Amino acid sequence: MTTSFTTDRALRFGDCDMSGTAYYPSYINLLNGVVEEYFTTIGFPWHKIMWEERWGTPTVHLTCDFSKPSFFGEVLTFGLIVRRVGRSSATFDHEISCGGQLRWTGHHVIAASNIDDHTSVPWPEAVKGELEKWVVV
Amino acid sequence: MTTSFTTDRALRFGDCDMSGTAYYPSYINLLNGVVEEYFTTIGFPWHKIMWEERWGTPTVHLTCDFSKPSFFGEVLTFGLIVRRVGRSSATFDHEISCGGQLRWTGHHVIAASNIDDHTSVPWPEAVKGELEKWVVV
Amino acid sequence: MTTSFTTDRALRFGDCDMSGTAYYPSYINLLNGVVEEYFTTIGFPWHKIMWEERWGTPTVHLTCDFSKPSFFGEVLTFGLIVRRVGRSSATFDHEISCGGQLRWTGHHVIAASNIDDHTSVPWPEAVKGELEKWVVV
Amino acid sequence: MTTSFTTDRALRFGDCDMSGTAYYPSYINLLNGVVEEYFTTIGFPWHKIMWEERWGTPTVHLTCDFSKPSFFGEVLTFGLIVRRVGRSSATFDHEISCGGQLRWTGHHVIAASNIDDHTSVPWPEAVKGELEKWVVV
Repeated sequence: MTTSFTTDRALRFGDCDMSGTAYYPSYINLLNGVVEEYFTTIGFPWHKIMWEERWGTPTVHLTCDFSKPSFFGEVLTFGLIVRRVGRSSATFDHEISCGGQLRWTGHHVIAASNIDDHTSVPWPEAVKGELEKWVVV
Repeated sequence: MTTSFTTDRALRFGDCDMSGTAYYPSYINLLNGVVEEYFTTIGFPWHKIMWEERWGTPTVHLTCDFSKPSFFGEVLTFGLIVRRVGRSSATFDHEISCGGQLRWTGHHVIAASNIDDHTSVPWPEAVKGELEKWVVV
Repeated sequence: MTTSFTTDRALRFGDCDMSGTAYYPSYINLLNGVVEEYFTTIGFPWHKIMWEERWGTPTVHLTCDFSKPSFFGEVLTFGLIVRRVGRSSATFDHEISCGGQLRWTGHHVIAASNIDDHTSVPWPEAVKGELEKWVVV
Repeated sequence: MTTSFTTDRALRFGDCDMSGTAYYPSYINLLNGVVEEYFTTIGFPWHKIMWEERWGTPTVHLTCDFSKPSFFGEVLTFGLIVRRVGRSSATFDHEISCGGQLRWTGHHVIAASNIDDHTSVPWPEAVKGELEKWVVV
């Protein structure tokens, strides 16, 4: 049984712009932290794989649709849905909501890569197996 | 004769991550500054329109394709191409390169909006006229 | 009985620089979020006081001593100690540690200010009373 | 004849908070970029020394006094004054102004350090000699 990963983030003062709503590059910073938390949850924290195995998961594609503003002080729920796991890539959909109202969505492709020479590498078997457990078609 | 807008940005220490390449949320922060600079260039600095007229240009859609890494210390050229001007929206393509090599591209839609109630507003005529001069089909 | 406020923060990928340690402006961003969380804890969330009462707590002084590096993936404990509460100011000491080892310290003065005209305002009585409960001399 | 180093920074939308003034962690990020630019100016760009020689200049002490707010859209002049050059440290004063009005000041100590093992290293002779030319007592 597969499920998506969800985690909450308060929208802090430092994430917001002069209109009192989220500065969208801060949204992307938060999103990256959510993906980092997801990898920690599945047993492969980025700090371990980068420090010890010298690979990471840079973003190769990201689409964002910002449909409604989010306001300073709101608590947002980030939902990460794994859609596809390739040889060295993974595709996620992101749904960011507040109180059940959808605020923005993302479509995201990451690729496992060596952090020293920046070439793509296949997912280690254990990582691929874990990611595949989360796939929601 | 229409042309696109270009401006350079050094990739600073604070923009890069532990692999020594650009942290992609920092890319988006730089991109936002480039769009801000473009609006200043065409005569409508964001700080004027926000402080004095209470409208801004939030992002409603952004697609990014990161094809090659960029390294700490490189100087990147951001090219902004205006593709379409609607009643209250504008569509841009972004091409970010270094030494003639394309590093990433963006497809971007902004919408003129009131910064107090966050509803879309039509472009003021003067702004629309100026944006239209830059359209490259 | 007074105690200091503590809260933890994982040092995320996006907080670190190419040496794999915290980028110090990111430390300051985290610190600001800690102070924000403290005000929420004592019953005066910044988003409430800013949106509803139009005042905030800008920093007027900050001293930081960074004695040891902190590494990507570490969980840091931020300790906030209230030292003094003035008419419109408050003075904090910050102690940031990991596994019992002190990493850096801060000395911090904030001042209650109107967010529209940026003049200082006295603490509302209820806020002052609450802050004073936390004072550790 | 010694002089201090000055450079300008526009206060961009992304640097400001919901009061329309500079978010102070963004100030620190800008300040770090100013110090980076200073090292480029004196012939030792951080990206060269970090990539090629594996040392950098982390901050060990920073004091900031924020006396007046700075507003979105203002152009700030950052003045960096070298006060002292030690065996592996350098002490700077920072004066940040707008239109001749002082906005904030900083007192800053950096220490040359190996970026792999994070131990302090003496300034290379050429760097020390160059820094000393800028000392203003």
